[in-house]
Formats: sequence, structure tokens, C-alpha cells
Amino acid sequence: MPKKEKGKIRIIPLGGLNEIGKNLTVLEYGDDIIVIDCGLGFPDEDMPGVDLVIPDISYLEANQDRIRGIVLTHGHEDHIGAIPYLLRQINPPIYGTKLTLGIIRNKLEEHTLPCEPKLVCVSAGDVVKLGQLSVEFIHVNHSIADACCLAITTPLGTVVHSGDFKLDLTPIDGEMMNITRLGEIGKKGTLLLMCESTNAERPGFTPSEKKVGRSLEAIFTANADKRIVIATFSSNVHRVQQIINTSVTHGRRVAVTGRSMLNIIGAAVELGYMTVPDGVLVDINELKRFKPEEITLITTGSQGEPMSALYRMAFADHSQIVLGKNDLVVLSASPIPGNEKLVGRIINELTKNGVTVLHDAVAEIHVSGHACQEEIKLMQALLKPKYYMPVHGEYRHLAANRALARDMGIDDGRIFISDIGKVLEIDSKGARFTGTVPSGKILVDGYGVGDVGNIVLRDRRHLAQDGLIVVVASVDTDAKLLLSGPDIVSRGFVYVRESEELMEEVRQIATDAINRCLDRRGEVDRMELKTAVKDDLSKYLYSKTKRKPMVLPVIMNL
Amino acid sequence: MPKKEKGKIRIIPLGGLNEIGKNLTVLEYGDDIIVIDCGLGFPDEDMPGVDLVIPDISYLEANQDRIRGIVLTHGHEDHIGAIPYLLRQINPPIYGTKLTLGIIRNKLEEHTLPCEPKLVCVSAGDVVKLGQLSVEFIHVNHSIADACCLAITTPLGTVVHSGDFKLDLTPIDGEMMNITRLGEIGKKGTLLLMCESTNAERPGFTPSEKKVGRSLEAIFTANADKRIVIATFSSNVHRVQQIINTSVTHGRRVAVTGRSMLNIIGAAVELGYMTVPDGVLVDINELKRFKPEEITLITTGSQGEPMSALYRMAFADHSQIVLGKNDLVVLSASPIPGNEKLVGRIINELTKNGVTVLHDAVAEIHVSGHACQEEIKLMQALLKPKYYMPVHGEYRHLAANRALARDMGIDDGRIFISDIGKVLEIDSKGARFTGTVPSGKILVDGYGVGDVGNIVLRDRRHLAQDGLIVVVASVDTDAKLLLSGPDIVSRGFVYVRESEELMEEVRQIATDAINRCLDRRGEVDRMELKTAVKDDLSKYLYSKTKRKPMVLPVIMNL
Repeated sequence: MPKKEKGKIRIIPLGGLNEIGKNLTVLEYGDDIIVIDCGLGFPDEDMPGVDLVIPDISYLEANQDRIRGIVLTHGHEDHIGAIPYLLRQINPPIYGTKLTLGIIRNKLEEHTLPCEPKLVCVSAGDVVKLGQLSVEFIHVNHSIADACCLAITTPLGTVVHSGDFKLDLTPIDGEMMNITRLGEIGKKGTLLLMCESTNAERPGFTPSEKKVGRSLEAIFTANADKRIVIATFSSNVHRVQQIINTSVTHGRRVAVTGRSMLNIIGAAVELGYMTVPDGVLVDINELKRFKPEEITLITTGSQGEPMSALYRMAFADHSQIVLGKNDLVVLSASPIPGNEKLVGRIINELTKNGVTVLHDAVAEIHVSGHACQEEIKLMQALLKPKYYMPVHGEYRHLAANRALARDMGIDDGRIFISDIGKVLEIDSKGARFTGTVPSGKILVDGYGVGDVGNIVLRDRRHLAQDGLIVVVASVDTDAKLLLSGPDIVSRGFVYVRESEELMEEVRQIATDAINRCLDRRGEVDRMELKTAVKDDLSKYLYSKTKRKPMVLPVIMNL
Repeated sequence: MPKKEKGKIRIIPLGGLNEIGKNLTVLEYGDDIIVIDCGLGFPDEDMPGVDLVIPDISYLEANQDRIRGIVLTHGHEDHIGAIPYLLRQINPPIYGTKLTLGIIRNKLEEHTLPCEPKLVCVSAGDVVKLGQLSVEFIHVNHSIADACCLAITTPLGTVVHSGDFKLDLTPIDGEMMNITRLGEIGKKGTLLLMCESTNAERPGFTPSEKKVGRSLEAIFTANADKRIVIATFSSNVHRVQQIINTSVTHGRRVAVTGRSMLNIIGAAVELGYMTVPDGVLVDINELKRFKPEEITLITTGSQGEPMSALYRMAFADHSQIVLGKNDLVVLSASPIPGNEKLVGRIINELTKNGVTVLHDAVAEIHVSGHACQEEIKLMQALLKPKYYMPVHGEYRHLAANRALARDMGIDDGRIFISDIGKVLEIDSKGARFTGTVPSGKILVDGYGVGDVGNIVLRDRRHLAQDGLIVVVASVDTDAKLLLSGPDIVSRGFVYVRESEELMEEVRQIATDAINRCLDRRGEVDRMELKTAVKDDLSKYLYSKTKRKPMVLPVIMNL
């Protein structure tokens, strides 16, 4: 080992703290940088029109020659989704397990890239050497197969990043999270543990994925006379495997609908993460050959997504499937916070069509993929970290995770709640926050990456609240004459046909404001004209309607 | 009793079915109409800028001389909130219990009315004669005091409307729901039961309000060294009473903040629905006189409302209270679906400030006010209705309620899932749907009632998604000349300062489109000019940005 006194470790989260998703953590030692995950986030309700949120990686761009690699914990969007955008700027090697890389390859096909990505496949147990650092991939359980946590050996000691994990004693793929290896690392001593916080408010242990299998068994038995349609996350390979297994037991064929479901099942079967007996899968176009009660249909749309296959089925807009009285729909997922109403809309519509719907409020058909309190404590107990950093979650989750660490006897001086862009420095003398680097949310809207920011969003929210009024007039500022207009155009404010009187008032007030400015002595300023129109109209409209539409005056000088 | 063969009962819900809130049900017999409740609803996320939703009451306006009265079950917004708007159109007598009317009087002070409302106070047990109909008010438990269900005697039999209810064996005001009276009515026979469906998906019984009292006791004992701040629904008089009682037991004074909380506590104390020992209430401005741990603060904001007292405290914007490490905040409420993120924002911010936060996911500090499955079955068992109509809820809730009725042996032919505007007719021969009357959602935005409709909302949503581009030009259609412009103004589309090239392209495409139209033979049509600009620009912008901003061309002819 080189002399410990020399180096410093710097931990810089660029995403995933004080927010859900867009997980990206930077670890530096000397000249070496490694990047842990590179995920995307979904827009909040105050970001209308935005499709995705990705981390600001300008710090990585500025230090690209020091980046030895990106190491991925698993293939969920919030851990890999920003890779296509990162590859537009930099192209470090990317290390991930087989399924993770399979999902990335699928994804990259939809993007035109300036470079050939360097994807390096690893397995749990592998150690990858990256400069002076080396990264060990350690198997964990999660709601996607082939998930790992990472143990990073540095000259100062071992840093562990939990990734997303849970402990599943009866996992579908037969492999329990490798707590033995974690214990071995802990015995030698862990310098820093970064541990996920998603379920840190929930007591106990997260139930095994197998619990869902038992529920499915009961549901299939009770509904032998029905076609069964099950919606779940396409990336939950084990869930899908259980649905297939149960279908086989009950003599059903399985059809699949929804683009991402078809993609992932295809990849998972090809890569050996899923076993489907011959003849079980049938094309959705061949369903006519079977009785409805001989079929299980696996579909996307468990979050109520308006373009998903389930949504289209519910609203009678799916080209192949019509759902009705003889169908059972199982929503094998919990609504992600914010999606409750979308999911509710599908449940209502299906119920109206006579479909029986089972969702997580009425049946045990979903388990979380994240560690609850006891599992987080187990991670701490195994690794015995000197320093502790809760990651992945809003502040409430990070704080709940901190409370668990306190319970386990880690004192406050060794627990660090960080934030994106914040630099935690660790050396042989201790650990401390030392500064910040650029960080933030980059918004993706259509093809645009970063061209929608606070000003654009503020305008969108304003327009959404009260609409707008455009006032157009032609003036001759030399002759001081109003030549034409003002014409009034309004959208999203009031129903114009029933508000003719109000619109006439608006025209009059705008006319008065323009004439008042033109009548004034001295030169006429176009800016002044605009301000007068805007102020007078805004005041009038608020007094009259208690609304504040955006007023956009366009004055042409001829 | 008059001869049964003659009359017909018509049940017409104008709100509250296939939606949450805006409860209003019309019951007619012959020339007599009574209206049950008159509530408001809150806007969905696809109604930006809308403040409230009220029922379309044009059917009531058209039949106003037949309306004998409005009978109210209780004082929640979704049962009384539309009264100020109804009173602008019609002015029938309004019957309600003391607290219900107290809340309405408070409310009406904020509105200018064209008439003097006719409020008639009743008590549980009273019977009000309305034409050939008579209405008996029967005490039920709910999350507001003085709630009733209604038994309406008609010449054809008794119709019962449950209102919102639960069975509380240990209610705070000492009065269990009057199941004895309901049983007596059931013994004679109930023609139709309309029963609420809010919790029809939840098994079991709703716990007693007293359970919250026990949790409060434990929380106060464990946090004797902290100031305790409790947010709850202001109308939950019993919850507030329990907070006051627990405070008294623990030697704390109670301060109150938030306008609606001050209003309702004032009304409840004045009307005798709340008992506060002398000297317990202190003004929020006098808090300095006490140690923090001697104080309980009751506040609004349990739903995360951005202007509420709790929100302002969390974001350091409250003029009297600063929260920190020595404070415990208790959110004694569940987030209403759709409010999860708002509530989460407050929890995060408080936690960041070092405040300890207890919310319903981590402590048992809230119980529902609505009947769960066993209580709905109890209502059915007591009343033994001939016909059954689930009310109050989205379709999923109505369907779950229907399933309970089936379980209780009411066969499908006697269960009616209705919808707003749908007429159920009952006579001695049976019951059936016979048609519809006008019904719908009237949107309230600022002072405007009904001037925001589908077109305005569609434009608002469009503007929110992708913003707009205004193209202004002056032309001389006779001379076929482009005189000035096109000027391009954009809002909510892209950050213009960083998109100058795109904006220049936009100007060029608009110029080309205008010139192309002007160069054409024959007369120039302004409409044609606009369409050309709009089509060319929309196509270009989508190909370039994958966005569809609203394109608003304004062409002035000089």
C-alpha cells in the first residue's frame, strides 16, 4: 500500500441527493476519477413540458482526462438513463453486468452518438482496476436482475456504495445478496459507506419477491375462468419470470404487449436471465387461437402512463386487445408518488368496462426492491464504516437513514448528509466538506438538452395558470400616430366568444394607453409604449377577473 | 298515506358520482324538489389555473319554483362549498345543523350575494316537512361535528342518504352514530339507500377518533422538552379538541395560526362544539412569555398548501414563528391523493431545518372519517333497502360499494350505479334509469364562474407544454407588400438569448411564407397568410426541436 498520508479521497454526488433519481456519484483519488452510475430523473409537476432531467456533468467534462471509468450498479433508468446524453460529451469506458449493458445497448439504438461507446461487461465478484483504484462488484438483490453494490479499494481504505438493494432470502434467481463478502470487507474495515435511503422511513424488512409469487398463485387459482392481464415494470425480470412460471403451472400461454416489455423480455431471454419453456410465448396476433382463460397477457402501463399498452387497452384504443367482463387485470406495482391519479384513472376506466382489477391497495401483488430499516442497519452492521453518507433520496429519507446510523452507534461527526455538487474530502486526518463543484438539473425537452431553464419554465407556468393576451399595434412614432390596431388576441384566458364586452374593454384600454404615450411631448419610446399597455391592462384585468394573464404587447413602428 | 300508485320518485345526482367532491343530489316527488348537499370539488391536474369546480345547476335554475329546500348533511367544503355560487342564481331555504350553518355564515361573509340567504337551523332528530316530503336528520359520526344522514319520507317509502359517515363507538362528543334509529327505519322498510363509497375498497372498520388521542398522549409524553406544532384539518373539531385536551393534561398553553383554523375554532367554541378551559388559549404574539416546551401550536397546512401557515413556517416565511431543532411537527392528516408531493416538500424542508416531523407514514396520528367495508355493510344491514345506489366516489369506489351490496344479498337488478345528470325513477312498479338532465363541471377561476371551459383549458395545457411563438407582420394586401416585420416574440419555448440562430430561422420561414402568399395571383386572404405562417413554422419547429409550441400569427393589413 502506498503511504496513506499523501492522498485524499473526494466524494462528489452530482445527482440523487435531495431528489429522487438521476443518481450519479463521483469518487476521486489523486488523478483518478471514477463515476458511479449515470441516471436520469423525471420532471416535477412544476416543470411542464419537460421530458427528462439529467445531471449537470460540466465537472466531468472539465476533468474528462482523469475519468478512468463509469461503474454501474444496475440497469434502472435512474442509474443508467443519462448515459446517452453523457456520451455526447465524453466517452469513458463503462463497466456493468451483462443485463445492465444489454439494457443500455437497447437504449443507445434510439440515439445518434458522436462516438462508439466502450462497454465492458463484468460479473458479480469481478474486480476492475481503474488507475490507483479498484472496484469490486458484489451481488445484491433488487427489483432488477444482475444488480451489484460496489466496494472501491483506495489507498486510504475501502469505500462502499450500496447501489439500490434489498436482502431477499428466497430470491427468484437463487442468489441471496452476498452478505458474506460484505462481512469480509467489514472485518478489514470500511472507510466510507454510501447507503441508499429510499425506504429508510419504513420499519422492518422488505418482503421477498417470492411473496408476490404466492399471491399470483392464489389469484390464478381463483380466476381460472378469466383471461389474466398483468401490468408490471418491464425491468422487473424476476416478476415477469414468476408470472410466466405461474402461467405454465396453470396451463396458460403468455402473450406480451408494450414496447419496453417486449424489448426487455427479449434481452433477458437472450442473455439467459429468463427461462421460458418452448411454446409458452405466443404472439399477440395469435390470441384468437386460444380461449381467453388459456391466456396470460403481460403488459406495460403499471404507472398509468397515458401512451402505455394498458392505458390503450383501458380506453379501447389498443389494436389487438379489448378488455371486458371476462378479464382480470392485476397491477403488480405501487404507484410512484405523483402517479396515483394516473393509475386511478385506469382503474376507474377498466372497472367501468366490467373488468375486475386487483391493485396494491386491495391485494398483495407487489413488493419493494429497496432496503427497509433493518436491511439498512444490516448493511451498516456488516461493513462497520468509519464514515457514513446516506444517498438516494429526498432530505427526509437521508435524515431517516442518518437516524438509523445514529441508532447503530455511528456518531454525528462521522455521518455526512451531503448534497449535489458538495465535496466531501477524506484523508488520514478525517473527513470534511470542503467546497462545491457545478451541479444541477439539465432539462431535456424534445431534442433540446438544456435549452429549457428557469425563465422558460416560469413563463410556461404563468401561461398555464391564466393564459395570455397579445396586443398588436402599428404606430408611426415620428408622426405620433396609431396607424393600425390594437388587435387583441387571447389564448387560455377566457372563452372569447362569450367575453366580447371584456375584449372590447381591453382594446379600448390598450388604445388609450398607446395614445397617451403618443400624445406626450418629446420622442416616443417603443419600450415606454409597451410598458404602458402592459401595466394598464394587467391592472384592469386583475380588478375585473382576479386573474393575471401574461400581457404581450407587440408595437410595430412603421 | 296517499295512493302509492300515483307518484314517482326521481333521483338525480348533479355531482359526487365518478368524481371526488361537489356532492349534490336532487330528489323529486311530484311537484316537490329537495336538494341534498351543495358541495364544491377541487380541480384536476389537467385544469391549470382553475380554483374550484362547482356543479352545473341549470336543472335547478329551470325548476327553482319547485325546490322546497336544500338539506345539508355536514359542513365540509365538498358538501356546502358551492352554496355561495348557487345563491347567486336561486335562493331556496337551507336546512342544516348549528355547526354546519355556522361554517356557511363564515363563508358567505366573503361573498357579495344578491339576496338574503334563508338558513334554517335543525338538530339531529328533527324532521323538516318539505312539500309532500319530510326529512329526518339522524346523527352520524364523521371527521366534523354535527354530521347527519338523512331519512326522507316519501309517499312511496323512505329514501335514506348516508351523507359521509363512520361508526365511532368512542366518539369525542359522546354520541355514537344513531344506529338504533336507522334500525327502526329499516324495520319499517327502506325504499332506497344512497350510501357513500369513499372507503369502500378498505376492509374492516375505520378506527375511532379516540385512537388519535392515545397517539397524541404518547407523543406529548415522549416530547416533553419540545414545542409541539400540530397541523390538521381545521374542520376536524374533535381532533382539535383532543389536541387541546392533551395539551391541558401536559400543562401546555395552546396557540393557533392559520386563518381557517382561527375561524373554525372561533365558531366551534362560540357554538359550544369545543371546550377550552380559561387561560389555555394564548395569542400567537404572546408566545415569548412562555418556554417553547410549554406551548402547543395548532396550525393549518396539513395538505402542504403553499400559502398555509405551516408552509410559511417551513420556508421561514411566517412572521411570528421560526421552527428549528427544538420543535416537533405532527402532521395529523393523510395527504389527499394528488397532494403527496406538496406534503413531501414540507416534510423535507422542516427536516432540513432540524425539526422532527411525525407524519402518517411513521406514526398513527390520523384516522379516516369515512366508513370502511364493514360499516357500509352495517348501514345496509340496518336499513335493508329495496334499492341501493352507491354515491360519493370515483367509479372504482362505486363498484367496490356495489360488490359489498351484492355480498349482503341485494341482487344486481336492485343496485344502481348512476352518474351525474342521470335520472333514476322509482315507482310502485320498480326502479329504472329514464334519461338525463344537464349536468357537468363549472370551473371557477378568480371572479369568473364558467368562463373557463374546454377550449381555454386546452390552450393552457398546450401553452404549458411547449410555450408559444407570436409572429407579427404588417402587410398591404392591395399593393401585395410586406410592410413591416415579421417580428417574432416567444415565451415558454426556448431560452431566446441562447437560441438566436433558431429565432432568425423562424423569422426567415415566416417571411418566406408571407411573401409566397403575397406573390400568388388574385386577392390576398388574411386567413390564408396566417395559415401559411402557422403551418410552415409548426412543421419546421417540430422537425428541429420535437416540440409543438403554439404559433400565433397576427397579420395587420394597412
